[in-house]
Order: sequence, then C-alpha cells, then structure tokens
Amino acid sequence: MKQLSEYSAQYLPVIEQHLFSTLNNALKTGFPELKESILYQFGFDAGKARGKRVRPMLVLLSADLLSMDWHELLPAASAIEMLHNFSLIHDDIEDHSPLRRGKETIWKKWGTEKAVNIGDALFILAVQTIQSIASQFDPQCAMEAEQLFMQAAFSIMQGQQMDMAFEGDRNINLEDYLQMIHEKTAALLAFSCEIPAVLNGRETETRELLHGFGLNLGMAFQIYDDWLGIWGKGDQTGKTECSDLIERKLSYPVLLGLKQSPQFCEMWQSQESFSAAMVHSMVEILASEGIEKEVLAKAAHYNEIALNALGSVRGNESAKNALRTITEDLIKRKK
Amino acid sequence: MKQLSEYSAQYLPVIEQHLFSTLNNALKTGFPELKESILYQFGFDAGKARGKRVRPMLVLLSADLLSMDWHELLPAASAIEMLHNFSLIHDDIEDHSPLRRGKETIWKKWGTEKAVNIGDALFILAVQTIQSIASQFDPQCAMEAEQLFMQAAFSIMQGQQMDMAFEGDRNINLEDYLQMIHEKTAALLAFSCEIPAVLNGRETETRELLHGFGLNLGMAFQIYDDWLGIWGKGDQTGKTECSDLIERKLSYPVLLGLKQSPQFCEMWQSQESFSAAMVHSMVEILASEGIEKEVLAKAAHYNEIALNALGSVRGNESAKNALRTITEDLIKRKK
Repeated sequence: MKQLSEYSAQYLPVIEQHLFSTLNNALKTGFPELKESILYQFGFDAGKARGKRVRPMLVLLSADLLSMDWHELLPAASAIEMLHNFSLIHDDIEDHSPLRRGKETIWKKWGTEKAVNIGDALFILAVQTIQSIASQFDPQCAMEAEQLFMQAAFSIMQGQQMDMAFEGDRNINLEDYLQMIHEKTAALLAFSCEIPAVLNGRETETRELLHGFGLNLGMAFQIYDDWLGIWGKGDQTGKTECSDLIERKLSYPVLLGLKQSPQFCEMWQSQESFSAAMVHSMVEILASEGIEKEVLAKAAHYNEIALNALGSVRGNESAKNALRTITEDLIKRKK
Repeated sequence: MKQLSEYSAQYLPVIEQHLFSTLNNALKTGFPELKESILYQFGFDAGKARGKRVRPMLVLLSADLLSMDWHELLPAASAIEMLHNFSLIHDDIEDHSPLRRGKETIWKKWGTEKAVNIGDALFILAVQTIQSIASQFDPQCAMEAEQLFMQAAFSIMQGQQMDMAFEGDRNINLEDYLQMIHEKTAALLAFSCEIPAVLNGRETETRELLHGFGLNLGMAFQIYDDWLGIWGKGDQTGKTECSDLIERKLSYPVLLGLKQSPQFCEMWQSQESFSAAMVHSMVEILASEGIEKEVLAKAAHYNEIALNALGSVRGNESAKNALRTITEDLIKRKK
C-alpha cells in the first residue's frame, strides 16, 4: 500500500509548480511589486521556507480517494492555498505578527498599507483560479464548488471577526470559542476535503462524510495547536515556551482554566504581564486540575469523529490510509 | 424625453432597497459586528449620508440604453457598489483618512485590524452577489461577466498599489500617472457601463463602445477631481481649499507643474509643509503657466471621447440622453 510519504513525494512538487506558474502568469505583466510580494509570501523567492501545503494535499488525496484524476484538482488546490495565504497576510496585520515561518511578514516588509492591498490582490487571484475550473467540470458542479469556496472564505472572515471581538474578554464561553475556530480554521479544511466530491457530482452522503472528516480534522488541529501553545517544547515549536500564556491568549486551555479553577482565574486577573514564576504556577494548576488532559481529550475526540467519517467513505484504500496517517500524526506533532 | 432626474428618482430608491436587502439577508444570521459595520459603510444606519451610487446608475442606464429590463441588472449593480465600497474601506485604511462623507471611516470607528477584515467580508459578499446572476442569464454570458468583474477588481488593487508606490516620488511621469488612474478608477466605471451588453450577449462593437464610454468618463472624472483638489471652492467641496497642495498630493496638475515649471518645482522641493502664502504662489504659477487650463482641457478631452463613444451606441435615445447629461455635468460639478 502506498504510504503518505510517497503521496507527498508525488504531489508536493506538482503543487508547488502549479502554484508558482499560476501566480507567475497572472502577475507577470502587472505592477512588479505585486508579483514580488506575492511570490515572497509563498516562498517562491529563492527557495525560502514554504508552508506545508496541508490544504492542497487534502484536496488531492480526497480526489484520489474518490478515484478521480488528481491532476484535475490542481487549480482547486492552488485556489484554496491562495485563499489560505491571503487570510494569513491579513491575519498577520491584524495580529501584529512580525514573523511567519522565520521570515518577515508582508506588512513588516512592505508596510501595513501595501500589505492590505497585496492581500486583496492575492484573494482576487484565488477567486480567478477557482473560476478557472468551470471549463473542466460539469457546469452545475463547478458553480456549486465556486459558491462553497466563497462560503468558506466568508467563514474565515467571520471567525477572524469573532476572534478579534473576543480578544481580552475572559467571559467568552467555550461554545463561542469552538464556533470561532470552526469558522476560522475548520471550515476551509472541510471544504478542501469536500471539493473533489462536489466537482465529481457525488451523492450527498459522500460529500457530507468528507466535509465532516475535514471539519473535525480542523477542530482537532486547532485544539491541539492550543495545547502546543502552552505545553509544546520551545526548541521544537520555534516559539517561546508557554507563549500563549505569556501573550495572554484566550486559548481553549486558558478558557477551561478560567472556568474551572478559581485559583487560575485569580492569577490571570492579578497582573497585566506574568513573571516566569507565575507562568510556571499557572501551568501547574492547569495540569493538576486535569485541564491539560481535558484539552488533549478534546482534540482526540474530534480526531476520532474525523476518522470515523473517513472510514465510512467508500473509496481507494491507499489514499484513505494516507488521510488516516495525516489525522493520526496531527495530534502527535511537536510543532 | 425622460430626463436624468426622472431616471434617478425611479432607480435610486430601488437600488437602495436592493443593496440593503442583499446585505441584510447575507449578514442577518452571522456575527452582528459584521452586519453593523457594513450597513454603516453604506449609510443604512438610520439614514445617514450615502454615496451617490454613480456606478449602479451607470449599470441601469446602460441596460435601459440597450432596451433591457433594468430590474434584471440590480444584482450586478449592487455587486459593483459593494466592490466599490470594499475598496473605499481599504483605501481609507491605506490613506489614513479619518472621515468619509462627513462620517468616521470604518478603521477610525472599529480600528484598523477589524476594518481590514470588514472590508474582506464585504468583498466576499460582492463576489457572491455577482455569482448570483448566473441563474438569470445565459450561462456563458454570466460567466464572462463574473470574470470581467474579477478583472475590474484586480485593476483597482493594481492601481492602488501603483498609487502607494508612487507616493512622494516626484519623478513619476504623466503616462504612469494616467495608467494608475485608469486602473484604480476608470476600469470599474468601464465595467459598469459594459456589463449589461455582456449579459445581453451583444456584439463586440457595442461592448467596446460602452466600455470606452465608461473608461473615458472615469478618466475625465479623476482628472477633474484633481482640478477640484486645487481650484475647488472649500465651501462647496467640503475640503480645505487647495487641499491637494497642502497634502503634497502628486495629482495631475502638480505633476504638470513639476515637469513644466522650474519655479514650481523649486518651491515644491523647498519645504516639507507649505505656508498659506506659498500655496497661494504655487496656485498662481500653475495658472500663469497655463497648467490649470491644461488640466481642464485634458478632462474635457476624455469627456469628448466618452461622448463620441456613447453617441455611436445604437439604443434608446432617452437613456442615451441621460448618460450624456451625467457626462456633461461631470466637468461642471463643484464637488
């Protein structure tokens, strides 16, 4: 059976090539600064650090799972990766993040004003790329895929708006938090897994299973990311240890701590910024109150729902196995 | 013959209603802050100052000119107005403008971070609205209209990127400046006039004439706007007199002054900010060197090309006459 590593070795260079040529063609006759900055964002400036291309991988593996020709899904995969990167450019402005993948973010390098516009231009390219699939598939299916693409984009914005509105509000309830990560992160992963079935005109059941797989994978991913933000090892994550506590980020473990431990709550409210000793105590409280375990259990819970949905899809066993590996690796990763 | 004022009285309330209900429906179940801020941008918060809806008016009049049912063009007209307002929200961030139509801009009211995201959400609604026309028209025509919509959107971003890149660079040549306003302003007006012909499957000639009409109208509009930025009367424009000189904006008259008058050029370079006396002298130089006349002649030149193109379109005389009135009024307006 073909392993995930073999799929990656096969798909990733083709994804990179498709992304590069699509962006390069769209931007080659335009104003040079747009081309330069957008290629930089994707790491196409002299082979610098690139994203993991998780979403394109999910698109192509889901296509393979349905025994479609994965090459036909390349424009959809590129469009989704462009949408994701557009949202990163604007998120980095909104979160004031100076670095991404060890490189200066677009706003840091080109200034906030231009970064807003560069993100906008990239989003337009993403929509143009998803529009380009119309000629390859049944028109009704293509139209539905385009509409779902825009809905996924809207989810990201809605999730980001909630995230910003929640900022600093320690009374956010867990349900609102889960809704926020559903919109901001999980919806696009759900769409990435579902789109091959949409374009292939598959029955509702298959679509819903693949959507559910991606959605729960996304929820698990984000909750585990919140775990890493406190318990990840600094030398592996590339971030400061306990960075989410230091930055007072209202992540899932923190919201649980505020809800369940009066002692944690008191410490959280006592200071604007925490000493190393305080951070250490807070982490201990979260562990002793069983909150660390609860967070990991929540991630595992979503992962299990994802795997169950995946297991029910009738399709190519080898691709299914690779998607299973992605899911299982997700909550073992160190960064 | 029906006058422009009668068309306005007929169209504008319907445009407002369509815009409001489209936005309200799309946002009513989502996160309230998005709905509140987007309705505010459009002036739907208790009847405050609204835009002039120039682009929707051009869409509907062009439809009438081609003897189409203008009601069918309402989604396209709303989509274009949404695209325009999205670009205003982001422009106001990029230009640090605190006020628009006498109201606080979105970034001023909600902060830059949220304003970026609110603009993004509005742009997605614009694309969804243009997608919604697919069911009403021939699928090929609808698809082409959607593609041209995205191209017009990309033009705006490209023009804005050029505008920001040119900032403070007094060596910008006039051709680059004209290219910038072509992309940033004129392209969307061209598309507004052309889209009814696209959706109606009209022959290339009609499409090109309407495109040319809108494009040249847009060029005239912007050049005349540059004239107003120096020679407009403060009590009528609502801006400070000579505001473009005071803000050191490299508008068309300033670029002409820098190119043609060594004396103007010297004054421009001599100070970071100008005294009232200097501004007065600079305006006098621009007049005595014939630059004020040259600017007005350039606007009139584009206006004439626009009117010629319009004159060649075979269509409803009454709608044509109303479009002619818009064009003629353009370079007589006081604000």
